[in-house]
Amino acid sequence: MKNDTLLRALARQPTEHTPIWLMRQAGRYLPEYNATRARAGSFLRLAKTPALATEVTLQPLERFPLDAAILFSDILTIPDAMGLGLQFAEGEGPHFERPLRDERQIAALAAPDPTRELGYVLDAVRQIRHDLRERVPLIGFAGSPFTLACYMIEGSGSDDWRSVKTMRHSRPDLLQRILEVNARAVTDYLKAQVEAGIQVAMIFDTWGGILAHDDYESFSLAYVRPIVKALAVPTILFTKGGSPWLREMMASGATAIGLDWSTDARYARKLAAGRVALQGNLDPAALFAPEKSVRAAARAVLDAFGAEPGHIFNLGHGIAQNTPVETVAALVDEVRAYSSARAKNNIPG
Amino acid sequence: MKNDTLLRALARQPTEHTPIWLMRQAGRYLPEYNATRARAGSFLRLAKTPALATEVTLQPLERFPLDAAILFSDILTIPDAMGLGLQFAEGEGPHFERPLRDERQIAALAAPDPTRELGYVLDAVRQIRHDLRERVPLIGFAGSPFTLACYMIEGSGSDDWRSVKTMRHSRPDLLQRILEVNARAVTDYLKAQVEAGIQVAMIFDTWGGILAHDDYESFSLAYVRPIVKALAVPTILFTKGGSPWLREMMASGATAIGLDWSTDARYARKLAAGRVALQGNLDPAALFAPEKSVRAAARAVLDAFGAEPGHIFNLGHGIAQNTPVETVAALVDEVRAYSSARAKNNIPG
Repeated sequence: MKNDTLLRALARQPTEHTPIWLMRQAGRYLPEYNATRARAGSFLRLAKTPALATEVTLQPLERFPLDAAILFSDILTIPDAMGLGLQFAEGEGPHFERPLRDERQIAALAAPDPTRELGYVLDAVRQIRHDLRERVPLIGFAGSPFTLACYMIEGSGSDDWRSVKTMRHSRPDLLQRILEVNARAVTDYLKAQVEAGIQVAMIFDTWGGILAHDDYESFSLAYVRPIVKALAVPTILFTKGGSPWLREMMASGATAIGLDWSTDARYARKLAAGRVALQGNLDPAALFAPEKSVRAAARAVLDAFGAEPGHIFNLGHGIAQNTPVETVAALVDEVRAYSSARAKNNIPG
Repeated sequence: MKNDTLLRALARQPTEHTPIWLMRQAGRYLPEYNATRARAGSFLRLAKTPALATEVTLQPLERFPLDAAILFSDILTIPDAMGLGLQFAEGEGPHFERPLRDERQIAALAAPDPTRELGYVLDAVRQIRHDLRERVPLIGFAGSPFTLACYMIEGSGSDDWRSVKTMRHSRPDLLQRILEVNARAVTDYLKAQVEAGIQVAMIFDTWGGILAHDDYESFSLAYVRPIVKALAVPTILFTKGGSPWLREMMASGATAIGLDWSTDARYARKLAAGRVALQGNLDPAALFAPEKSVRAAARAVLDAFGAEPGHIFNLGHGIAQNTPVETVAALVDEVRAYSSARAKNNIPG
């Protein structure tokens, strides 16, 4: 591979610079993405057409010297393949036509066969790997079993996830049944992505942070652990609002832990103690600032994580829709320049 | 005072039971609250009419043996008094008619004189104290300078607080100017509430948790510290999503730290090490469960905080609108019963 910086950082080996990629790097802040999406007609059509998914996956790499590509897809492909009927209304978030509301539906829930029902994702992975021509590694991903359950039960995004939490408290057995099926489904799906060619697997536990402290272990992390264990590639586990459970996440078996922007990078680094890699954690809002401030913010993040191997630069959350493209260019440039200089001078972190 | 359990717990002195009150205990889950609000005509009219504010403040105490009353009001009374034009559209959150969008507006911003422009709040405090007849202490409150700034800049609630964060990154000087005025305003307001009769002051830093890790100190906590210092009554500081900054919050000078439901109570207790009281932290969603589960959840929270003095039982966030009243009764009953038995038997925590 021409640039394997990400893989070496994940293995906590020294690198010439700190690798950088951005969550949602193939997205609406890029005019070329919007053009492809317009051609596709809808977000779902874009995600379900391997040639178009490949096109948008590669777009950010044409603009910026990023150290990884991430499969363009959506975490909700799994419940869609389970028959819940995924919809994206224009200008709104996702919703399901048939959310899980009764016991019979939940009893009937089954993990889809990814080679059949999610074949379009695997086709995209194969085409992206081909078109990437070993420039950088390809990251695949899935939602965590709990995060998928949130959408499957609620039927859409939510401020308080009332239905999910009510089920957790009144019928925990039903929630556990959903989580078991989801864990099976995510495992099968990510294994199939690995077979198709992804080189790193990321698990987005976007909503794990809404759980009560003692519930995170039993309703989210317990279902992530077997997935991570089953995969033959390095894994990155990201929980938004995961600060209260850093120690537990680090003991999950994941190769790297993704940190959101509120997490104390210095404390995380101390906890990790060189046993796990760390990814993050610039506030995506920092990109709405003059270039000089963005460069300073990038250096501050690099300083907080220190010069020891095992840091992957990223935002603490997906890049925002209206982020100026020039600012992203400045960020990527600064991370590369500052971390290369630091590595050359061998300044201890 | 007949029941000073809250004040003793805040002073980390032994109590016969763990005091309990609930954030937003005077609220829409109570039919009698909804009746009074309907009579008032609107939320703002309710908050601005001392007799009605008194009525709803006392309602939960008639139903449940709670250990504190909390003034019925809104954190946005201050920016309203500053002239931003607070509105509550039916079924929606608050919004301001004149959010802070240009430099001239921000330069002209001034702390209101609470005895004049917020006299209706002070009248309510006096009437509540009179009608309470020393049954339990009265808690007053204000939003934190940063949380107020969020609404003042954004103009309403937000998922990503884009305008606030953009200002923080592109014009931090403007944000600092707003925060300085807010800190002055909150100090004056809470001092006036103390003079009118509140016995405890709570600071709601509802949105401090959206800040990047290193920004919390400079844009939220730095402006809370002088407020806490200026007050002659015990203070409770609550930051939603505050887990990454527990240590810093505990060193702020506040008498007690309010914990949200994702915070690890055992870890917080260890960090507090008897130097600061702790309040929280049952997941409000736990109240959507059968009574037996609610009682078990209450005991789990009491066990996590342990039997040592200095715990005030509360939810980790405001009580939800559709919470069943019977469940609240069971919660209050269980906390009283379990913690009394524990105190009698002197079981170490």
